Amino acid sequence: MEVSLAFPQATPASIFPPCTSDYYHFDDLLTPEEQAIRMKVRKCMEKDVAPIMTGYWEKAEFPFDVVPKLGALRIAGGTIKGYGCPGLSITGSAISVAEVARVDASCSTFILVHSSLAMLTIALCGSEEQKNKYLPSLAELSTVACWALTEPDYGSDASALRTTATKVEGGWILEGQKRWIGNSTFADLLVIFARNTSTNQINGFIVKKDAPGLTVTKIENKIGLRIVQNGDIVMKNVFVPDDDRLPGVNSFQDTNKVLAVSRVMVAWQPIGISMGIYDICHRYLKERKQFGAPLAAFQVNQQKLVQILGNVQAMFLVGWRLCKLYEAGKMTPGQASLGKAWITKTARETAALGRELLGGNGILSDFLVAKAFCDLEPIYTYEGTYDINSLITGREVTGLASFKPAASRSQRSRL
Amino acid sequence: MEVSLAFPQATPASIFPPCTSDYYHFDDLLTPEEQAIRMKVRKCMEKDVAPIMTGYWEKAEFPFDVVPKLGALRIAGGTIKGYGCPGLSITGSAISVAEVARVDASCSTFILVHSSLAMLTIALCGSEEQKNKYLPSLAELSTVACWALTEPDYGSDASALRTTATKVEGGWILEGQKRWIGNSTFADLLVIFARNTSTNQINGFIVKKDAPGLTVTKIENKIGLRIVQNGDIVMKNVFVPDDDRLPGVNSFQDTNKVLAVSRVMVAWQPIGISMGIYDICHRYLKERKQFGAPLAAFQVNQQKLVQILGNVQAMFLVGWRLCKLYEAGKMTPGQASLGKAWITKTARETAALGRELLGGNGILSDFLVAKAFCDLEPIYTYEGTYDINSLITGREVTGLASFKPAASRSQRSRL
Amino acid sequence: MEVSLAFPQATPASIFPPCTSDYYHFDDLLTPEEQAIRMKVRKCMEKDVAPIMTGYWEKAEFPFDVVPKLGALRIAGGTIKGYGCPGLSITGSAISVAEVARVDASCSTFILVHSSLAMLTIALCGSEEQKNKYLPSLAELSTVACWALTEPDYGSDASALRTTATKVEGGWILEGQKRWIGNSTFADLLVIFARNTSTNQINGFIVKKDAPGLTVTKIENKIGLRIVQNGDIVMKNVFVPDDDRLPGVNSFQDTNKVLAVSRVMVAWQPIGISMGIYDICHRYLKERKQFGAPLAAFQVNQQKLVQILGNVQAMFLVGWRLCKLYEAGKMTPGQASLGKAWITKTARETAALGRELLGGNGILSDFLVAKAFCDLEPIYTYEGTYDINSLITGREVTGLASFKPAASRSQRSRL
Amino acid sequence: MEVSLAFPQATPASIFPPCTSDYYHFDDLLTPEEQAIRMKVRKCMEKDVAPIMTGYWEKAEFPFDVVPKLGALRIAGGTIKGYGCPGLSITGSAISVAEVARVDASCSTFILVHSSLAMLTIALCGSEEQKNKYLPSLAELSTVACWALTEPDYGSDASALRTTATKVEGGWILEGQKRWIGNSTFADLLVIFARNTSTNQINGFIVKKDAPGLTVTKIENKIGLRIVQNGDIVMKNVFVPDDDRLPGVNSFQDTNKVLAVSRVMVAWQPIGISMGIYDICHRYLKERKQFGAPLAAFQVNQQKLVQILGNVQAMFLVGWRLCKLYEAGKMTPGQASLGKAWITKTARETAALGRELLGGNGILSDFLVAKAFCDLEPIYTYEGTYDINSLITGREVTGLASFKPAASRSQRSRL
Repeated sequence: MEVSLAFPQATPASIFPPCTSDYYHFDDLLTPEEQAIRMKVRKCMEKDVAPIMTGYWEKAEFPFDVVPKLGALRIAGGTIKGYGCPGLSITGSAISVAEVARVDASCSTFILVHSSLAMLTIALCGSEEQKNKYLPSLAELSTVACWALTEPDYGSDASALRTTATKVEGGWILEGQKRWIGNSTFADLLVIFARNTSTNQINGFIVKKDAPGLTVTKIENKIGLRIVQNGDIVMKNVFVPDDDRLPGVNSFQDTNKVLAVSRVMVAWQPIGISMGIYDICHRYLKERKQFGAPLAAFQVNQQKLVQILGNVQAMFLVGWRLCKLYEAGKMTPGQASLGKAWITKTARETAALGRELLGGNGILSDFLVAKAFCDLEPIYTYEGTYDINSLITGREVTGLASFKPAASRSQRSRL
Repeated sequence: MEVSLAFPQATPASIFPPCTSDYYHFDDLLTPEEQAIRMKVRKCMEKDVAPIMTGYWEKAEFPFDVVPKLGALRIAGGTIKGYGCPGLSITGSAISVAEVARVDASCSTFILVHSSLAMLTIALCGSEEQKNKYLPSLAELSTVACWALTEPDYGSDASALRTTATKVEGGWILEGQKRWIGNSTFADLLVIFARNTSTNQINGFIVKKDAPGLTVTKIENKIGLRIVQNGDIVMKNVFVPDDDRLPGVNSFQDTNKVLAVSRVMVAWQPIGISMGIYDICHRYLKERKQFGAPLAAFQVNQQKLVQILGNVQAMFLVGWRLCKLYEAGKMTPGQASLGKAWITKTARETAALGRELLGGNGILSDFLVAKAFCDLEPIYTYEGTYDINSLITGREVTGLASFKPAASRSQRSRL
Repeated sequence: MEVSLAFPQATPASIFPPCTSDYYHFDDLLTPEEQAIRMKVRKCMEKDVAPIMTGYWEKAEFPFDVVPKLGALRIAGGTIKGYGCPGLSITGSAISVAEVARVDASCSTFILVHSSLAMLTIALCGSEEQKNKYLPSLAELSTVACWALTEPDYGSDASALRTTATKVEGGWILEGQKRWIGNSTFADLLVIFARNTSTNQINGFIVKKDAPGLTVTKIENKIGLRIVQNGDIVMKNVFVPDDDRLPGVNSFQDTNKVLAVSRVMVAWQPIGISMGIYDICHRYLKERKQFGAPLAAFQVNQQKLVQILGNVQAMFLVGWRLCKLYEAGKMTPGQASLGKAWITKTARETAALGRELLGGNGILSDFLVAKAFCDLEPIYTYEGTYDINSLITGREVTGLASFKPAASRSQRSRL
Repeated sequence: MEVSLAFPQATPASIFPPCTSDYYHFDDLLTPEEQAIRMKVRKCMEKDVAPIMTGYWEKAEFPFDVVPKLGALRIAGGTIKGYGCPGLSITGSAISVAEVARVDASCSTFILVHSSLAMLTIALCGSEEQKNKYLPSLAELSTVACWALTEPDYGSDASALRTTATKVEGGWILEGQKRWIGNSTFADLLVIFARNTSTNQINGFIVKKDAPGLTVTKIENKIGLRIVQNGDIVMKNVFVPDDDRLPGVNSFQDTNKVLAVSRVMVAWQPIGISMGIYDICHRYLKERKQFGAPLAAFQVNQQKLVQILGNVQAMFLVGWRLCKLYEAGKMTPGQASLGKAWITKTARETAALGRELLGGNGILSDFLVAKAFCDLEPIYTYEGTYDINSLITGREVTGLASFKPAASRSQRSRL
């Protein structure tokens, strides 16, 4: 039975609720252009995407039909100027991510991987030829890209990666494995990082979907971001022509410019998700009755709703400040990590409260919150887990690195 | 790619880890019989059930093949004596639930609905004929039952239900809707509660699967307990013969004896789930390495693991004490509600910590914790949400009921 | 033994640490005037106040010597223009409060009661004569005021107050009791609210210290804000001349303009307190060693420090946004309540983390954090407890009031 | 004004509330002897100690008058058999600690230091002569002892202590400093640990109050356990005769037998404190009214009260199980650490909830909760901080020690 028939008391997320979470008038902090892109993205997401996402999420399938609609929004490419890219301000780009995530987090991850990781790597580390060749169709989403850094044995410790790139006549041979790579099962282009066997440094390459020796297998059984197609990549003797090596990637540090932006963007996903959670809870509590009164009239429910609302205001402002620091050229890695870590932690608490507020309907993805609750988990963990991001900031503010444990055998045992 | 190939660093839950969570030797508090049933259930779950559950959970399908194996354990019927039922102690029955839930929470809900709700209602409120007729095959799990109280408009406020039972020649006519009914899509017998149109009191009925006018539709899109088949039931002019009215249900209060036991049993699900979480985290942290050391060697990870371990010990003991109070004939509704509420809350915190510990693999149901994390959500909410159970205990200890809000219009507005 | 001798490993708060908490360059959001008043207040607090506060706090005595120094800062009167008042922006006034609270929360409460409650009531509800007569010396802190609303039986429910004002020849007779009134044991002027016995509405009066029939007793045994002198006030036949009735207070609603500002100011106290906590923890962790390494090098410590830092950034921004809403004439009561509630809750979590970081020295007020930890408790509760403020916001966003419980006897008991 | 006059709505803790926290009939798990000692201690604490403690706590003074009353309870010496000691079961001893702490935590720390640290060290590591000479009067509390391990530079890392003991003719010369030593400002006997300058191992000594070269200074400005007199000890050329060296202390490991017991006892302090918090909140919420209804009738208050109640049941059972493991000779250091850590963490959450429930009166020590809230902080930190105890358990369950951080300079910086 359709959920709206089976459960007539409350409207599901396919009819998306109005945005009621902007309690502190965050909109006033945006430029007219930023406000315009925000409304454009919101309208498309509510109208075109909200009605169909529950089904795709449940089946863990990708909604290819949605891609042209997202392409038409002109948000792919984000802050990149020229090459057919929209050249948004970082705040404008961030608020677009949030508006996508408000309705569907998976969609926002799809765009982020494509835009803030893959396209941005090409824009920052590619040659003029590469930029001209690849960026325009990527900006239209008529081609899709992915970005492959993580390996099975190197997650938090990504810089220790083992995939190799060996120079050969006219190009390079890539050998190795990548894991968790979003969009990789269908991406046209794969930006892949590998260790140069002569320099022992990290280099970057653009690999085509149909490259011989490249196999991508979808990772099944995810509880969150189920629409995002993550892949396990195996490369056996994959040849990449010289033209497809990214000249600007000569060490792991070169990925940092990209990660600085993408970490800011990732921080805006939980903001958008939390906005959606508030909006739906706000409507639900007023529609649904128990004991003869709307759920909104109960003290315990009001208190949770208000805590969600407070969290959303704070997350907004932290995310916004991070963008402003970036725009001012001041943002440090520690600041970006703190933003990502603090916001995702707060969002996770927010989602758990929302989950409670919806009772039984809080476990159905039809009512958004269940889906949002699950989608936050991979976000909590990717682009640096909460723990790793904390320790990056910790290192910056204390001057002391604490990533690695001491060798256990050297530790005293008298305690 | 199979997760064990794609990700060779750690063993998935299909090869279930040994039980390492019994740090405070809880086993010493069990009788030899209770220990024996515990080990029997554990062995079956680890060997027969663990290898296949990820797939069913992902597809949200029910593993009918598993039913005979669960039947052979002789745990259905739990504490019921006679009529082919095992007559376990309540502690023995509870620990069985926990051992099932440790490997797969959905399986434990399947049994609970069947055994501690449906069978127990027949045992406590049925006639001698009904008990002899129905319980033996239910105890073998050769027939399956469900239990239908909740309605679309009456969740927390279940006693206000609207399904009607009208006396007619030779039986009763049921009209109405039920929602969220576990096992109902395939159950042979449905225990259904309805309001007697002449007395206005709640009565109980045994309805057969193929009764004309009865339609059951599976509820889709659940994020947790995905294996459990919850149904929306519509009854239009469903005839139930006099023999299938449960003579012992003459008011809503008569369901309380059943709910007292089932709430204890439900409280043991999160205990079992949390045991499984600890066991898998314990193995995972020792297997998986980052930065050249096992994850178990990092302070932040040890601290989470230890917090999980402490929570498990406390949950165990609270659940055990509740059983002892029940066995001594002292358990009050408030005590049962406190147990269910406190344990599920603690388990939820536990699952979130476990989720963090497994990093990216914490979002794959292959590694158990992701699944457990999701499965706890419906448990947090069913059989009385956390909030409702708190307020039941609150009423008992203060003598004041606070379920309903005051009419809002009468409230002063000067604040 | 002096703590610095007894415990040479770390510097106590009498030598206040530099401000290191402004990680997201909040200062850039301030005007040059606001930055200037901030630095002026900070300097005075660090130099003149930090060295002596531990002693006063321990003895629960008020440091009268400090009053002229605070007076010289020209922050009393805050946003009031004219009458010798500084006419700061609300942001400037708020940041001054925070800078005072960073070093000593009690001092900030002293000023707040005097300035944002008592002076502001005179400024907003007083006659021109009253303003000219009272405000200039209050602005210099050469006279001190307090503000008396709360009564023993009416705390959260303050509008129900019972103190009476009865019109007599040439003035009014006040009868009743007030409780918790900060500064009241030594204040020169007491702004007192009472119920007009003919209109049954709330009126406001300026009462002099030595008015016959007025008795003030210090409330002893406080764990927090120990320097603040709260009093129990008993009024028996206290005569107030007509000239000292505040003409602008004609109902309880008239206090709301005052409370709107003061709630914003109160919200900035926990911000300042949390800044101080971060600053001292940051220094302490680098100074103090255990196991051969600075405490700052331990994962568990870095993680707490970073969580504190993130909380501080978020609190700052929420407080700042609230000021901007106020300045734009848009701030609603619900927004102010949300700010106060969310910030104090976050600060409380922050203080608990700081307390842990300092280990044993975290229980000595010499190292600030212990004192800050205690000082937050009354702030969490005054000017609307966390719960009351949540429900004020809850009412605003849902349109439903939930302050009062329903009469218990009318509640069903079937659950 | 006396709090009961100034605030007539609720009874202060000087008239102690009845014990209502034993919701799960924990008493049934005690032997008749254990129940008897429990009731005896409770009666004395409620009647003789409750009325006077607020005053001493506020002044941070020790109530010497109470000592004979505590002595008469015959609980000092706890589990020690013979030598005039009571020879209680460990459960009986633990429940006595809890009953003392329920009314006043400082009193329980006073006894614990005296009994479970100092007396137990003499009992386990002393010679027959020492036991006969010192234990009987200590058991009567006619003499008082303290126990000095911690040093200014060695807190968590206590085993690295630097105080030296150098063999001389007829005895030993002690040189060094101790910090935080409870009871030390007035104790008749000081059990002191020092590093033997020839063996480099830790030895133990009994030092008399008036030993030349021994100076003890009270540590001021504590926020918690204010009645406990902690001292900074300086030893300059302090001579201890051979007879007062404890023959059983030959290395740091020899303190572990003592710490195993004392850690269990310490774990029972937060249990007792939390019982007291529940009892007073339960009474307060029923007495105090707001908005025309008892505070107990509000949803948000009931929920907090019930969470406290659940925490108390769980803490009880964890503490009890630890005692049973000890009695069965099975208790490991990791189990004791887990118990202490988990219980104190849970108690801290409990106290914060109680603090909220009492509103403004929650910051007055008159109403117990404010005092309890503060007293938990030193307990959270002493006998192993929460973090250290977690890592002790973590080491036991993982086999990997993680106390020390790796040298920071060796850490990669690419993240």
